[in-house]
Amino acid sequence: MKCKAAVAWEPKKPLEIEEVEVEGPREGEVLLKVVASGVCHTDAFTLSGDDPEGVFPAILGHEGGCEVVECGPGVKDLKPGDHVIPLYIPECGECEYCNSTKSNLCQSIAGTVWTGYMPDGTRRFSKNGKPIYHYMGCSTFAEYTVVPEIALAKINKEAPLDKVCLLGCGVTTGIGAVLNTAKVEAGSTVAVFGLGGIGLSCIQGAVMAKASRIIAVDLNPSKWEMAKALGATDFVNPRSVDGKVSEYIAEITNGGVDYSFECIGNVEVMRDALECTRMGWGVSTVIGVAGAGQEISTRPFNLVVGRTWKGSAFGGVKGRSELPGYVERYMDGEIELDAFVTHTMGLEDINKAFDLMHSGESIRSVIIF
Amino acid sequence: MKCKAAVAWEPKKPLEIEEVEVEGPREGEVLLKVVASGVCHTDAFTLSGDDPEGVFPAILGHEGGCEVVECGPGVKDLKPGDHVIPLYIPECGECEYCNSTKSNLCQSIAGTVWTGYMPDGTRRFSKNGKPIYHYMGCSTFAEYTVVPEIALAKINKEAPLDKVCLLGCGVTTGIGAVLNTAKVEAGSTVAVFGLGGIGLSCIQGAVMAKASRIIAVDLNPSKWEMAKALGATDFVNPRSVDGKVSEYIAEITNGGVDYSFECIGNVEVMRDALECTRMGWGVSTVIGVAGAGQEISTRPFNLVVGRTWKGSAFGGVKGRSELPGYVERYMDGEIELDAFVTHTMGLEDINKAFDLMHSGESIRSVIIF
Repeated sequence: MKCKAAVAWEPKKPLEIEEVEVEGPREGEVLLKVVASGVCHTDAFTLSGDDPEGVFPAILGHEGGCEVVECGPGVKDLKPGDHVIPLYIPECGECEYCNSTKSNLCQSIAGTVWTGYMPDGTRRFSKNGKPIYHYMGCSTFAEYTVVPEIALAKINKEAPLDKVCLLGCGVTTGIGAVLNTAKVEAGSTVAVFGLGGIGLSCIQGAVMAKASRIIAVDLNPSKWEMAKALGATDFVNPRSVDGKVSEYIAEITNGGVDYSFECIGNVEVMRDALECTRMGWGVSTVIGVAGAGQEISTRPFNLVVGRTWKGSAFGGVKGRSELPGYVERYMDGEIELDAFVTHTMGLEDINKAFDLMHSGESIRSVIIF
Repeated sequence: MKCKAAVAWEPKKPLEIEEVEVEGPREGEVLLKVVASGVCHTDAFTLSGDDPEGVFPAILGHEGGCEVVECGPGVKDLKPGDHVIPLYIPECGECEYCNSTKSNLCQSIAGTVWTGYMPDGTRRFSKNGKPIYHYMGCSTFAEYTVVPEIALAKINKEAPLDKVCLLGCGVTTGIGAVLNTAKVEAGSTVAVFGLGGIGLSCIQGAVMAKASRIIAVDLNPSKWEMAKALGATDFVNPRSVDGKVSEYIAEITNGGVDYSFECIGNVEVMRDALECTRMGWGVSTVIGVAGAGQEISTRPFNLVVGRTWKGSAFGGVKGRSELPGYVERYMDGEIELDAFVTHTMGLEDINKAFDLMHSGESIRSVIIF
């Protein structure tokens, strides 16, 4: 079939709206109509050319809210009309990672997801016979996309897809990093570096975990209002601080925070985030994705005195098992999504979404198909 | 009173055996007769001049087996004749670290212990009126020393002090890092980098934790025999491996070990130790003490995919609460100490202990007073 898609023909160039060819689903695959898709920093990161795994031409997009159109042979638990969120980390339920309570990093199709192919090593998108790469196994910047069943979380049909699409990446990543990866306890102090969609979601997670103090850190003071509305108690602008921001935070918390989260992808900030945690038991979680070849550093003494440096991908959330529950928590008012959608637009205006993101004006733009 | 002590007058010079003056115990302090003292790499590190906190002249030594001689006013739970192990990390029982189950880093007297003074800001050692610094709050390279009660673990009098002195640092640090800091589970795979006293003790800890595979890593193949006797299952000499040792270990363990421990103090090895752990849930614990100004580095992606980088000091062991139990486990045959004491000598030969350590001939030399 033919449909419209925003194609990234090459890095650093605007996306182009094209009519592309989409092949039907093969064994274990599902054809989806994309109803809505968030535009995330990771899409911009790949488009920038800094992503060492980026391949072109590709159809980007990985925060989708979709409806099942057609199931390929062997699909077990989905049928046309079901609502789903595509998962860039699948959940096969059978590999050693799915069988572990410690990890969500299902490896069943990792060899193809991150190289732009479907699990069978082929592609479903093309334009005039020229194949186009998939992206993070999702490719939601298209009217229709094909995703394996093991990478689809079936959700409540009552949930608005133009909101819960954000649970496909940013919001889940932030909340999950707090609840699943760091396991913040009630009464803890928390610092969140970077107040984009993920950082603001960390704040939500910290509120859900009943943190006693939530310090929001960003260079842009206009982010503070939303952070405060979500539950942040303090705002720190590193530019307004004399000396190191880590030392300033240690000072105002009488020794450092119990937990910190880096939600930017800046290796210097990752260091600040570690070093602002309390000796003895401080835990810092890296969420942001750094540029190719960049490295984090610290004095090992900072670990020897009891700090822990961890990382989180998709918030440590096993998508098919846990995401339906996140959708319910949104429906119950426990998770905020509506305020995250600061802009909506049609697919034809998708490049505006990237502009709004780069200028810091949007939290999330959602493409409505 | 006067006694013999090995004095480090300045960095990089041999210790000198001197008759020094020891003042009696003040409020909360205890005068100890040192019966035996291990010689540890940390003593050598400070003597090398690379320890940024090293001050001279000092009486080094911090792995002591001692007998109580005299208690100062206010000492509550000790009496002359009691056997004790001095603790470089005290346990006051009252600070927020003592009250936390997450940390052993009692901060009650941290301001003085690491600067070479007693808690009241004065010193008990001198020579011809010239004051001599304490070391790590212990200074066990002297016939007599003064230590605050909160830094003394009272132990079973039946235990041989010339063996259990090793529980004052190295052996406890290694076992505790496995059991308390990393919390290795039964069936786990473990890699231990560096087969000195601490690394060999990590192997003991891994055996106690019922690890399924224990990979011992060292440049010196002569260390392998003892590692194997303690329970190591594999030996890797990084010099015999093509390419990175972390990749080799990942290869032979089908993706990496569950837990690793760095027991050297080499920042490059710390990186190898992290990177040889399995994505998803690998935990690497830094134990070794690196030189001043040295830093650890890695790509943040190594954390984002589920690895954890931690550190451990004195094995996360709260000394007064837990060390008596370690002594009992030695008495019951569960902890090996005897094989660690490869050399013994009188105080007058203490410089030989440093030579044996540097040449890699000894695991531990113990000074018998």
